[in-house]
Amino acid sequence: MSKLLIVGTVAFDEIETPFGKTDKILGGAATYIGLSAANFNTESAIVSVVGQDFPEKHLNLFREQNINLDGLQVVADGRTFFWKGRYHNDMNTRDTLETQLNVLADFEPKVPDHFLDSDIIMLGNLHPAVQMSVIEQVKAPKLIILDTMNFWMDTTLDLLKEVIAKIDVITINDEEARQLSGEYSLVKAAKKIHEMGPKYVVIKKGEHGALLFHDDEIFFAPALPLEEVFDPTGAGDTFAGGFAGYLAETKDTSFENMKKAIVYGSNLASFCVEKFGTERMKNLDIEEINGRLKEFKSLTQFEINLT
Amino acid sequence: MSKLLIVGTVAFDEIETPFGKTDKILGGAATYIGLSAANFNTESAIVSVVGQDFPEKHLNLFREQNINLDGLQVVADGRTFFWKGRYHNDMNTRDTLETQLNVLADFEPKVPDHFLDSDIIMLGNLHPAVQMSVIEQVKAPKLIILDTMNFWMDTTLDLLKEVIAKIDVITINDEEARQLSGEYSLVKAAKKIHEMGPKYVVIKKGEHGALLFHDDEIFFAPALPLEEVFDPTGAGDTFAGGFAGYLAETKDTSFENMKKAIVYGSNLASFCVEKFGTERMKNLDIEEINGRLKEFKSLTQFEINLT
Repeated sequence: MSKLLIVGTVAFDEIETPFGKTDKILGGAATYIGLSAANFNTESAIVSVVGQDFPEKHLNLFREQNINLDGLQVVADGRTFFWKGRYHNDMNTRDTLETQLNVLADFEPKVPDHFLDSDIIMLGNLHPAVQMSVIEQVKAPKLIILDTMNFWMDTTLDLLKEVIAKIDVITINDEEARQLSGEYSLVKAAKKIHEMGPKYVVIKKGEHGALLFHDDEIFFAPALPLEEVFDPTGAGDTFAGGFAGYLAETKDTSFENMKKAIVYGSNLASFCVEKFGTERMKNLDIEEINGRLKEFKSLTQFEINLT
Repeated sequence: MSKLLIVGTVAFDEIETPFGKTDKILGGAATYIGLSAANFNTESAIVSVVGQDFPEKHLNLFREQNINLDGLQVVADGRTFFWKGRYHNDMNTRDTLETQLNVLADFEPKVPDHFLDSDIIMLGNLHPAVQMSVIEQVKAPKLIILDTMNFWMDTTLDLLKEVIAKIDVITINDEEARQLSGEYSLVKAAKKIHEMGPKYVVIKKGEHGALLFHDDEIFFAPALPLEEVFDPTGAGDTFAGGFAGYLAETKDTSFENMKKAIVYGSNLASFCVEKFGTERMKNLDIEEINGRLKEFKSLTQFEINLT
């Protein structure tokens, strides 16, 4: 079985949408990536940090999904990373109302011995220094996938570029691709980002789907059109988790297989947004995922024979 | 051979984009629809109006494409409809700088005798009264496709709704679908628009592709990712022309065939935006269109077999 190492935040989120608001609920990039990847046949571990305020029930949720927590540090007297945000009526844009780094401020990741030979590393959004440290600890990964965001482009671009030079697949959203490349056209942006290192560039366009670029080839998967998007929090991470989980299960990192991984990422993300936080991701079953795969097929597949 | 009746503006456009600006060039909904549909094996006619200032070379362009002009009125001493607009840097939004209705103000459409038994009517964006008049003139069309825009929703909604109640397929953009239905979710919007009459709802999302709704079925075709969008003017009409032209050629208005028509619409539109105005649409050949169809296939088609 492939080993999938997941790095990213494990956090408390407080979310406000036009549909309602939550208390402090479970959130964080590694959380969504882990819960999404758990739908695939792979051995996975989370490397992250929480405070003493992090409840046992959340830890148990990860354990129930067979996610190894040896690399999840619990800081005595520390408080867990906290993010509070409010979505606008279009559900595509949001304001950050509060960010408390807490235990994340001094986080030094330590990859558990059993995962030093991980096959795939999924670097969720975090400080590039943390991402680099994990890359340096793992022996000979077959594939390194990186997610990041505009915040690190604004504050620590040089270090971020050093990380980007070392990875195989980058997943970022359209605005971030434009910022990183200085190109408005996503086709041109992907080319410039290729030149920075990654052989594969995934550009996430939220409700407008995701593009996978490799040399001159492009693949696109739409987001599933939904009656209602309830809470977009974690959709991008859930997408990345489905992508990484599928590649880990199938042990095939070819472009053809990455197409399928993109479809699975979109599939999983379509569940994530249906309820607040991780609620919908806790008890997904394979029948639901397969049912939605059929929807993706009928949404996108057509038969035209050239005359 | 099917008869395709095209109604819409034939116009002069003056266009400014970040790449440059044009003089008064050939434009108008019926123009783009006609040039796009001309790539299919069908007998087509344009019902529209121009002024005496409309040059013979433009008329010849239509004639070379075998488009019947018996329904194109030329008003003596009249001036052709004129639109002037400027695109913003994102190429997705634009300002109208000037509109001169001119001969369009008193236009009363007259369907040529030979097209009174048209199989498909493609009603391009125009005053709903003109669209209604054409519907009433044609005997027993197999399919009526309507394109419209927010301007008519703002100014003559009741009449527009009467037209919408009589047609089979509506093509509008996402913002217009939201305005017409009062629903933000495009899935909900399509349902409400179904209830107004059309069995098929096509929602155009520009660079983000197009959705086709029919009962509970949804099909999606992306726009082809391009290095550069040079001028988006007419892309939506070119899409509609490809859609209508393909349905006319294949004489099959099933949902399955409409999926293919959506792909052809996106295919043709991807050419339109590559040059200013109608420039790229004048001399397309079937090899180019087939080549791009292959690109659409590799962009969207995947093989996943459920286990």
